[in-house]
Amino acid sequence: MPVFSEQFDPGPQIAQCGSINLGTKDIEKSLWFFRDLLGMEEVERHGNVAYLRCFQERIHHSLVLTQQDEAVVNSYSFRVKRPQDIDLFKQEFQRQGIEVVDLPAGHEAGRGAAIRFLVPQGEHPFELYYDIDKPAAPAEMRSKLPSNSSKRRGLAVRRIDHMNIQTSPATINQTEQWIRETLGFKRREFANLPDKPDTLMASWLSVTPQVHDLAIGANGLGKTAQLHHVAFNVQDFSDVLTAADTIRDLEISYGVGPGKHGIGQAMYLYVFDPGSDHRVEIYAGGYLIFDPDWEAIEWKRSTLPDGMTWYGDPIDTSTGSRGRHTTGSAGLHR
Amino acid sequence: MPVFSEQFDPGPQIAQCGSINLGTKDIEKSLWFFRDLLGMEEVERHGNVAYLRCFQERIHHSLVLTQQDEAVVNSYSFRVKRPQDIDLFKQEFQRQGIEVVDLPAGHEAGRGAAIRFLVPQGEHPFELYYDIDKPAAPAEMRSKLPSNSSKRRGLAVRRIDHMNIQTSPATINQTEQWIRETLGFKRREFANLPDKPDTLMASWLSVTPQVHDLAIGANGLGKTAQLHHVAFNVQDFSDVLTAADTIRDLEISYGVGPGKHGIGQAMYLYVFDPGSDHRVEIYAGGYLIFDPDWEAIEWKRSTLPDGMTWYGDPIDTSTGSRGRHTTGSAGLHR
Amino acid sequence: MPVFSEQFDPGPQIAQCGSINLGTKDIEKSLWFFRDLLGMEEVERHGNVAYLRCFQERIHHSLVLTQQDEAVVNSYSFRVKRPQDIDLFKQEFQRQGIEVVDLPAGHEAGRGAAIRFLVPQGEHPFELYYDIDKPAAPAEMRSKLPSNSSKRRGLAVRRIDHMNIQTSPATINQTEQWIRETLGFKRREFANLPDKPDTLMASWLSVTPQVHDLAIGANGLGKTAQLHHVAFNVQDFSDVLTAADTIRDLEISYGVGPGKHGIGQAMYLYVFDPGSDHRVEIYAGGYLIFDPDWEAIEWKRSTLPDGMTWYGDPIDTSTGSRGRHTTGSAGLHR
Amino acid sequence: MPVFSEQFDPGPQIAQCGSINLGTKDIEKSLWFFRDLLGMEEVERHGNVAYLRCFQERIHHSLVLTQQDEAVVNSYSFRVKRPQDIDLFKQEFQRQGIEVVDLPAGHEAGRGAAIRFLVPQGEHPFELYYDIDKPAAPAEMRSKLPSNSSKRRGLAVRRIDHMNIQTSPATINQTEQWIRETLGFKRREFANLPDKPDTLMASWLSVTPQVHDLAIGANGLGKTAQLHHVAFNVQDFSDVLTAADTIRDLEISYGVGPGKHGIGQAMYLYVFDPGSDHRVEIYAGGYLIFDPDWEAIEWKRSTLPDGMTWYGDPIDTSTGSRGRHTTGSAGLHR
Repeated sequence: MPVFSEQFDPGPQIAQCGSINLGTKDIEKSLWFFRDLLGMEEVERHGNVAYLRCFQERIHHSLVLTQQDEAVVNSYSFRVKRPQDIDLFKQEFQRQGIEVVDLPAGHEAGRGAAIRFLVPQGEHPFELYYDIDKPAAPAEMRSKLPSNSSKRRGLAVRRIDHMNIQTSPATINQTEQWIRETLGFKRREFANLPDKPDTLMASWLSVTPQVHDLAIGANGLGKTAQLHHVAFNVQDFSDVLTAADTIRDLEISYGVGPGKHGIGQAMYLYVFDPGSDHRVEIYAGGYLIFDPDWEAIEWKRSTLPDGMTWYGDPIDTSTGSRGRHTTGSAGLHR
Repeated sequence: MPVFSEQFDPGPQIAQCGSINLGTKDIEKSLWFFRDLLGMEEVERHGNVAYLRCFQERIHHSLVLTQQDEAVVNSYSFRVKRPQDIDLFKQEFQRQGIEVVDLPAGHEAGRGAAIRFLVPQGEHPFELYYDIDKPAAPAEMRSKLPSNSSKRRGLAVRRIDHMNIQTSPATINQTEQWIRETLGFKRREFANLPDKPDTLMASWLSVTPQVHDLAIGANGLGKTAQLHHVAFNVQDFSDVLTAADTIRDLEISYGVGPGKHGIGQAMYLYVFDPGSDHRVEIYAGGYLIFDPDWEAIEWKRSTLPDGMTWYGDPIDTSTGSRGRHTTGSAGLHR
Repeated sequence: MPVFSEQFDPGPQIAQCGSINLGTKDIEKSLWFFRDLLGMEEVERHGNVAYLRCFQERIHHSLVLTQQDEAVVNSYSFRVKRPQDIDLFKQEFQRQGIEVVDLPAGHEAGRGAAIRFLVPQGEHPFELYYDIDKPAAPAEMRSKLPSNSSKRRGLAVRRIDHMNIQTSPATINQTEQWIRETLGFKRREFANLPDKPDTLMASWLSVTPQVHDLAIGANGLGKTAQLHHVAFNVQDFSDVLTAADTIRDLEISYGVGPGKHGIGQAMYLYVFDPGSDHRVEIYAGGYLIFDPDWEAIEWKRSTLPDGMTWYGDPIDTSTGSRGRHTTGSAGLHR
Repeated sequence: MPVFSEQFDPGPQIAQCGSINLGTKDIEKSLWFFRDLLGMEEVERHGNVAYLRCFQERIHHSLVLTQQDEAVVNSYSFRVKRPQDIDLFKQEFQRQGIEVVDLPAGHEAGRGAAIRFLVPQGEHPFELYYDIDKPAAPAEMRSKLPSNSSKRRGLAVRRIDHMNIQTSPATINQTEQWIRETLGFKRREFANLPDKPDTLMASWLSVTPQVHDLAIGANGLGKTAQLHHVAFNVQDFSDVLTAADTIRDLEISYGVGPGKHGIGQAMYLYVFDPGSDHRVEIYAGGYLIFDPDWEAIEWKRSTLPDGMTWYGDPIDTSTGSRGRHTTGSAGLHR
């Protein structure tokens, strides 16, 4: 730690998109999809719950699969920058009157103490944590590259990239503002609803130089607490093509792609985990934002189709909310 | 700006690798290389000085070419996070007894006030600035994608990626430590000299999630103030292959590549600007570090060859300092 | 020539898809498109006529651009395997009562004597030739690779790949049969019209291991003598993506793509030459057929969408004839 | 079959590089390599012998693995164009005094009657066949694409590409001449030995538009009947990079690559089957020759390094015979 900076305190900050806990009605099928096909490592399994990470992740897990009756999202977890940030965030949430649940170490295997709360109005169950184990992979899976926890395999997803959530158009503006002002995300790109020019259709937000670690969109059916998709990152555009080629030949529900977003300039492919039916994006490329004075890019009705699909399989923008298939969330206490 | 965070002050911080000012004996040949071949935009030209940026950069320039008798590096410039960071850094440098030169707005076209100083012992001329213009490209070059300042063209370098400097093995440890402690760079990966286990051979450092925005290495001839290379980023591994295919067929001095570094996991191609003879890396991919508690990876004698070249055209590691072709720097006052 | 085989005579054979002569209303704009953007070499120019080839072609030209009032196709040219094949084909055509026009050497610059005829019922003007010059490129364009006539540049089309023509559904079966039986093309893949199960919708034909050197389809408006598109080959799928990325940012009419055909398993991108409005396909990959007993693959109504688009930007198959934008042909005597 | 061509007879012709029968001391390890890692299908297994094909091959097999004490090559098999070509070739061989062994249908599973002989002086055991089964893959492996026999998987080799054999410099000229004149291969590119300008160092030969279906080189130790490598084809350059990335992390002996040959313009990666220690090339791209009057390209001492390695991991050309690791062949009667 720089000696010089010890006189300064940046306050509590979120470091990264950490992990998602997906409910699935068929954990074996979900494991086939994420582990055997996408190439994740099953780090730990406790009965109904499996913990997975990608080959370029050293932390314990970025995906939790929980066998349960309803395929809802159990939690969206973010890692904070310093141990003390958990408490600093908790104090601020309580100051704002937000109910906070303390989760003990081990609530998710490999993870230290965490806090859980519902995003105001959005009601998405967010969790914040700092401590997490960095277990070595079994010897036969271990990579010679020390920056990889295991060897590249399968469709070679290398890390969780971002989560894309949806909420009611009635409250999306306030929720997005809260995420920016309290959690410290920056708005990078956005679009308003074609027919409600003061209401967000979607906002792409980040705490890192990525264009988004988290996106929030208006749900076409007015529902709150929805997941649109979780994205996993692959190295190159060619890896997205390989994934498309492979998945088209399997019994997997295929969404849209491959194509290149104008928004974020990344390549996309949307498919559905056959176990849980949650939408998963296989994602590559994109630009990074290092400018400290970045002004959010606005996409208007006329440019939005280019924003959604610069080239390739087109995303339907006619509904104004990018499709109606979303999945709900568990509540605060689960 | 989040309301909540106003009670905190992170102190002065560097935001990004900003630009490099290269002396060249033949500016027309250098412009052919960077503008016509690599595809940069010549934003502004004043006699002996040309300002260029890549198609995904909105700021005024990331490269300055200056026609002069000696092809030294005139400056390495970094952008800070906030306007006040210039003064905060200046106070700290002066507290440490480092001479600081004030550069007025316009010293480099399009740029606001800056400070200049020599890195302790390393003597590389660093400059820090915050304000910089974001001019629109001429209409015919402008991209339909608002995150690109101009259209993709040529070998399609999209942004400056990092700078790799060298200094004497006698002082590299102190210089690297100063860069970490005073400038706030984090050490991400490193190797010590095979024959001097307490002396850095090289250290890869960043203020962003990139594995390096700046690298520093021990110079094989014991020289200080050297440039090993400046790197420009392309989208994909395939873009590096296309660059290699193209450049092999031109009268350009070819260094090493393509290959994939184990260090940073990025694809490399080293060539020499035929106007200035500075080494330029065309660079793609790599992993990003979001872990707030990242521990620097050490490469040892036995693993260093994998670190330099995971696959592809091998970088000679036998000298311990990655080749002897480097170029010096202008002094503090130029 | 093998001594042993001198006792055998394979008869007249077509060696390859040779060149296409496109009428254009704006030859300068067409030259910008094919030469400056796609990267072809302008080998020779005589007033209203320009001759171009790709960087991996050693013959004089694979594309002729002719400035004229009507942007029709002036000829589809195929090269035969031996000098005597011209006369052997001519004798057979005349035996069948087909009118044949003799074209002297130099009718197209760089080309030897040729014959011209209209495909029975289809009325496409075909030309057959054997002799063609192989001029060296100007010194500054020449490649160090002897298998390339010039250096890779632009969007890097490397050779003509195939021509796709259309004719009336009323006569397509006979025309396609004649192409197979008299010209020696083999049917590789095909589909019949959904509503006329005995009538071809399209047939992909080749004299080489490519899945098609020539395709013929039923025209949706019942017109004969139409061009659907001419295709130029690039090295890799990534080159098609780069072309899409580049062309989307230019004022060029964009058709469909990128996507991967199930038919032929190649990557496609359809755009329109802004000078002539002819449709051009940028094409990569695909499989090769070496099996001497290949049985043509039939695509049925249920599988045709996969055949047209395995993944990526979907080609509309609802009309049964792949779009209505086609261009006509000059007659026998022009 | 075209009516018109029935008056002509092209004589016996080889259609394609068919299959190779590799002896291996550890068939389970070889199966792991070819089937589980490279992604081939194990079509049939009879005790010590396994038959494999790639996902884009419809014929019964392109690779036979035979467990035996010596890891020699048991046969190089080529498919002829017509059933009667077997006998026509046999008559010609016998006319030349070459001993021919008749192999009954089923000698290799799935294959019809064949003939076996040793290449004059080279002594490589060649086999010619026409009939071969085209079995459907098991339902769960079958592809939705009818041109693929099974789904893409593993490192995705899609077909055998070519075989590269070596023989003594003392007789290479005669052997290569015989392959051209009797078997009908065409010389596409070649180089003579630096120190023996009248003796071939290597010749790249084909019966198809590929630059080579078969290559023959001078063995550095003067040995005859050697295999340098067998090559399997992947779709794209990116697939070669993925293979390199994957294989570098496994306990597999790594040869050279990735790099791009100037000769043939294809991407290469050489590795060794850990079961048999035969060298295998993973191969992509390259140009196709459609010109009927192609003149073989000669690589001279000064250009040969570019021919071997245009870019990437360099192949050592100093020995004049591309390395000394080769494997011998079984004799005529095995």
